[in-house]
Amino acid sequence: MRKIKVGVAGYGTIGQRLADGVALQEDMELVGIADMVPSLSVQALAENDMVGVNGIKYNLYLVEGADKAEFDRRNIPVEGTFEDLVKKVDIMLDSAPAGVGAKNKEIYEKYGVKAIFQGGEKNSVADVFFHGYANYEKGVGKDYLKLTSCNTTGLIRSVDCLDRAYGIEKVVITIIRRVADPGDYHRGLTNALQIDKAPSHQAVDLMTIMPHIDATGILVHTPVTHGHIITVVAKGKQKITKEMALREFQKHPRIRVVSLADGFKGNASLFKYARDLGNRRGDMYEIGLWEDSIVESGDDIVYAINIPQESVTIPETIDAIRAATKLQLTREEGTAATNKYLGIGKFKK
Amino acid sequence: MRKIKVGVAGYGTIGQRLADGVALQEDMELVGIADMVPSLSVQALAENDMVGVNGIKYNLYLVEGADKAEFDRRNIPVEGTFEDLVKKVDIMLDSAPAGVGAKNKEIYEKYGVKAIFQGGEKNSVADVFFHGYANYEKGVGKDYLKLTSCNTTGLIRSVDCLDRAYGIEKVVITIIRRVADPGDYHRGLTNALQIDKAPSHQAVDLMTIMPHIDATGILVHTPVTHGHIITVVAKGKQKITKEMALREFQKHPRIRVVSLADGFKGNASLFKYARDLGNRRGDMYEIGLWEDSIVESGDDIVYAINIPQESVTIPETIDAIRAATKLQLTREEGTAATNKYLGIGKFKK
Amino acid sequence: MRKIKVGVAGYGTIGQRLADGVALQEDMELVGIADMVPSLSVQALAENDMVGVNGIKYNLYLVEGADKAEFDRRNIPVEGTFEDLVKKVDIMLDSAPAGVGAKNKEIYEKYGVKAIFQGGEKNSVADVFFHGYANYEKGVGKDYLKLTSCNTTGLIRSVDCLDRAYGIEKVVITIIRRVADPGDYHRGLTNALQIDKAPSHQAVDLMTIMPHIDATGILVHTPVTHGHIITVVAKGKQKITKEMALREFQKHPRIRVVSLADGFKGNASLFKYARDLGNRRGDMYEIGLWEDSIVESGDDIVYAINIPQESVTIPETIDAIRAATKLQLTREEGTAATNKYLGIGKFKK
Amino acid sequence: MRKIKVGVAGYGTIGQRLADGVALQEDMELVGIADMVPSLSVQALAENDMVGVNGIKYNLYLVEGADKAEFDRRNIPVEGTFEDLVKKVDIMLDSAPAGVGAKNKEIYEKYGVKAIFQGGEKNSVADVFFHGYANYEKGVGKDYLKLTSCNTTGLIRSVDCLDRAYGIEKVVITIIRRVADPGDYHRGLTNALQIDKAPSHQAVDLMTIMPHIDATGILVHTPVTHGHIITVVAKGKQKITKEMALREFQKHPRIRVVSLADGFKGNASLFKYARDLGNRRGDMYEIGLWEDSIVESGDDIVYAINIPQESVTIPETIDAIRAATKLQLTREEGTAATNKYLGIGKFKK
Repeated sequence: MRKIKVGVAGYGTIGQRLADGVALQEDMELVGIADMVPSLSVQALAENDMVGVNGIKYNLYLVEGADKAEFDRRNIPVEGTFEDLVKKVDIMLDSAPAGVGAKNKEIYEKYGVKAIFQGGEKNSVADVFFHGYANYEKGVGKDYLKLTSCNTTGLIRSVDCLDRAYGIEKVVITIIRRVADPGDYHRGLTNALQIDKAPSHQAVDLMTIMPHIDATGILVHTPVTHGHIITVVAKGKQKITKEMALREFQKHPRIRVVSLADGFKGNASLFKYARDLGNRRGDMYEIGLWEDSIVESGDDIVYAINIPQESVTIPETIDAIRAATKLQLTREEGTAATNKYLGIGKFKK
Repeated sequence: MRKIKVGVAGYGTIGQRLADGVALQEDMELVGIADMVPSLSVQALAENDMVGVNGIKYNLYLVEGADKAEFDRRNIPVEGTFEDLVKKVDIMLDSAPAGVGAKNKEIYEKYGVKAIFQGGEKNSVADVFFHGYANYEKGVGKDYLKLTSCNTTGLIRSVDCLDRAYGIEKVVITIIRRVADPGDYHRGLTNALQIDKAPSHQAVDLMTIMPHIDATGILVHTPVTHGHIITVVAKGKQKITKEMALREFQKHPRIRVVSLADGFKGNASLFKYARDLGNRRGDMYEIGLWEDSIVESGDDIVYAINIPQESVTIPETIDAIRAATKLQLTREEGTAATNKYLGIGKFKK
Repeated sequence: MRKIKVGVAGYGTIGQRLADGVALQEDMELVGIADMVPSLSVQALAENDMVGVNGIKYNLYLVEGADKAEFDRRNIPVEGTFEDLVKKVDIMLDSAPAGVGAKNKEIYEKYGVKAIFQGGEKNSVADVFFHGYANYEKGVGKDYLKLTSCNTTGLIRSVDCLDRAYGIEKVVITIIRRVADPGDYHRGLTNALQIDKAPSHQAVDLMTIMPHIDATGILVHTPVTHGHIITVVAKGKQKITKEMALREFQKHPRIRVVSLADGFKGNASLFKYARDLGNRRGDMYEIGLWEDSIVESGDDIVYAINIPQESVTIPETIDAIRAATKLQLTREEGTAATNKYLGIGKFKK
Repeated sequence: MRKIKVGVAGYGTIGQRLADGVALQEDMELVGIADMVPSLSVQALAENDMVGVNGIKYNLYLVEGADKAEFDRRNIPVEGTFEDLVKKVDIMLDSAPAGVGAKNKEIYEKYGVKAIFQGGEKNSVADVFFHGYANYEKGVGKDYLKLTSCNTTGLIRSVDCLDRAYGIEKVVITIIRRVADPGDYHRGLTNALQIDKAPSHQAVDLMTIMPHIDATGILVHTPVTHGHIITVVAKGKQKITKEMALREFQKHPRIRVVSLADGFKGNASLFKYARDLGNRRGDMYEIGLWEDSIVESGDDIVYAINIPQESVTIPETIDAIRAATKLQLTREEGTAATNKYLGIGKFKK
């Protein structure tokens, strides 16, 4: 079978994980990656002789404005220009800095290449605002998809999980947001919590993807780097008990139910656990969900989830490739293929 | 009029603020404070020649087990023993470390002295679990009262405020907890969020004080020192709009409505503001409530408050003295007297 | 005696403390303060009816570009323009944002008014780069002085202290820098140490003020808000023992020798202690110096100091007013007058 | 050739990395690991069907006091008891909690098994206090060795590097210590720097390993989790210029010279880089050394290094196995073998 040819624009926090994710899909080929500067991530790839996961070489293309001499000086091999890459692929994963994707789209259109944009772009850049589990079918055959952001992606996994089983009418979320990624020096917060104007965009985005649900919420930034925590107050169409919720969460391949008793005391425990698993970069594709956090309140079910912000959108982005290129036509088949190649859900009994 | 004679057991984070609070009440006399070791707080008092607010001298008494020679070596004057202090007062404010209050109670009983315990003690230590605004009348004339903890005190202020105006049926809270106070070295959290088993004790405590309300919630510890933030999802007996909620919050003397537009970006802004006001120790008695956080969700009203953990319980503890000693017999009179002497509510239009 | 008339440009972190410092000097008059926006600090002043320390009113003048309507809307009284203020004073303390001071200087020159600039301006803005203890006499009668920055001010206090007693040849410093002030949301660092290119500017600045000393050092930013810590490796012209160093440090009015045994475990202990002292804003004018940190290494003496970044430059800035206006002609008299009115050194035996 | 049979006591932060390190040595066999509780690290191993690096199975043995039923309940396979493990090996790597190693030693002696202890144990537990580069030969053929702690191990690498080339007389260090590891919830520090009594034990330990050098220093704890930073002021027997120092550092296999210009802004950059390299757990065996930090001060050379606290002692511990078991008799051969199997130094030109 002919493999889908994929390129990645922007080899940053998300881009390098997308590249790895694609490289793991046996029905896809990572044609190359594109970036503008020899960042630490690019330097690390070069130290590995441009070899990423599974011994696959990641060919580097330079976007317009890049200083090729600087790459040469560092002996970082360059394969060509961004347009050279675009010409070779079926679909681009655009993880360029927010706003750049809209400009890149002109190039994608020029060469008739499909593209998946990340959450930083405006919705208008895409035909569909996409989530692998919540609206896979809407993305099938479309040219331009935009992924939900990290918090929204993880949040929707859990809400969609309950919604399919029992029906959800409305949700109120509190997002306890990590303010920077490990290694970030361009943003930070020190000994302070910071509150955003309500409602948070994640609640608004959830309603765009799941228009039958009313959602609102408050976001508070916290000075940590490992994983957002979201508390969810969800009202079911029927009364959802703790047992009913837990049963569904435990069946979901991209939800990892954890407990305080096992030693999962917070977001940092999940990061530590992923490192100890030997996961590349200490990443985790699953959201964590604390069994001990689930409580009932009248008709509402309440729970807390952990969002591994660096890696959580990778599976749904791979799903998006499958939908856009019609590799699989249904949510069940599309997500199952992604899960298989990423090794998601293996630990489930 | 004869002043109520008050003693303070434990001159720590809470105790020194209680002592200041009492010293500001014109109908009370701070007889003395008691502690066991020459802590930094005691050393600071000694550097000021034992003079606290309003030029009032804070006489120091030593609890059993204290090493008086150590105080002498540091030239810290000692007035007598803990029992000497108890014998001189009408009522003790017990802010000893959690659990010690229960033992101190034996001494209070021996001398027929009333006492107010802080949140760290078990409810069984007291006749009434008390909150100045929510159940003042239950404390009137009682011998032993226990105050709600800092988060619960501030939370109840806001819930009681809405409940009296519109009726509240149930609340779901997310507590984003500061993990240590400024200067704490005996506890801390570094680059991690930590989750507790749900429901949080604050939700349970709220139900004890306000038994007609169903409450639950999740608590997450964060590595900051200035002010907890709590998000509240409250269901009214009637639909409560943002305007209806805001109107009540703005009338409450112990709630400070703030906005992002004014520069109140988070808990640290409120601490900075209190310092800039020239408040002693940079303390604030009011909880902050972000106007920008208030949103509606079906029948629920949602909002976020800031809890200045070091000082928030001081007013309600002074209220408790008033109730226990029958200085004032009603909630309105009792809290008004406390507010007057503490300067609370002056900034309200 | 006619009082020196002083204005303060910029009512930010430093400016408000300068205003308080001036208001405490019995031989000076705080004519007014100037700012551009109704910041939290200005709002706090307005909540206090524009009254600062000692019941003194702080008249507010608006710099060019300010939106007066916005101040009116908030009922913040405005006395006039920045130039109105400059016309009324003998000397301006310029704590405007870095770079603005150089532009303000044109206005000071226009009206023949002296000025003291803070550390953020370039040295070229001033006639003398000034430190109250190290080179007071160089500032006497000068029109434009620039203060050393917070770290340099505190560092020089300690080095000058040893230098005057024993002679210092060279120093190597490690600055463990707090990255933001309490309440700062415009800068921050999360779970990271950040290193600057060596040598640090503080070492270079020390050599400018004390040209007979060779200095270099490394600066590392840390995610905390209370107080820088600097370790100093100083080589004496003679062997300086721990006892010799300690003796001099203990005599210096602006150095507070503390110990771990007393409970001063780090920078946060000193902040807590200043709050417990009841110091306005929890500020401290003295640097802390840990007795337990002093060790000898061959000919070098090694020690660690704490720099309270928000308030440490206030005394030396007041010294600068005295020098520039010839209120006192010598270091001894000038610093003694400042210390008296700021209450510095009272705690020394 | 018969492989050296190795066991690891304690599968915690250090123990699991020791196990991986041994599994990578082609002349060693990892017989098994021992622990007491099903920690997150053990659970992660179990989720991987007890398979660690290179597809090698890590057999688990339980130390006395372990609750085997708890392991059974979790389906974690157990091979036997701690003594069963000890009986099968030539040498034990003891990374049990501090103090437990001394008790374990009785079992090692009972079965005539050699052991390498980590830095938490007292020096008296071992025949030699060991560092692979500084005193390899002292460990040759010995039964009980104790490794230097993480900071001391990395520090000595850099000092020994200069000492062998130019001779070092004395050093003064400032340790800017990370206070917890990622995922630690049992210790932490929040918005505070904490100072220890000088001299730091690392300076004292350096003198034990390198008795011809005079060393002292100050340690300050900081609220971060990724990598200590140490500034070193070293006095050479001859004047050491920046170029001379840099040349030697660049040749050392276990020192990675980095620069701010390349994007290595601090300790978190190195952690990020190790993750991006795809290193297991995001670990790095090399210390980082900032080229931009190297400055001269009279006869002293000054520089800053980064200590990856979780993994830095692994190579020197493997060296210790080689020395104790006489696999290699010299420093050059021993460290070269370790480096080869751990992939250290590959990136050097």
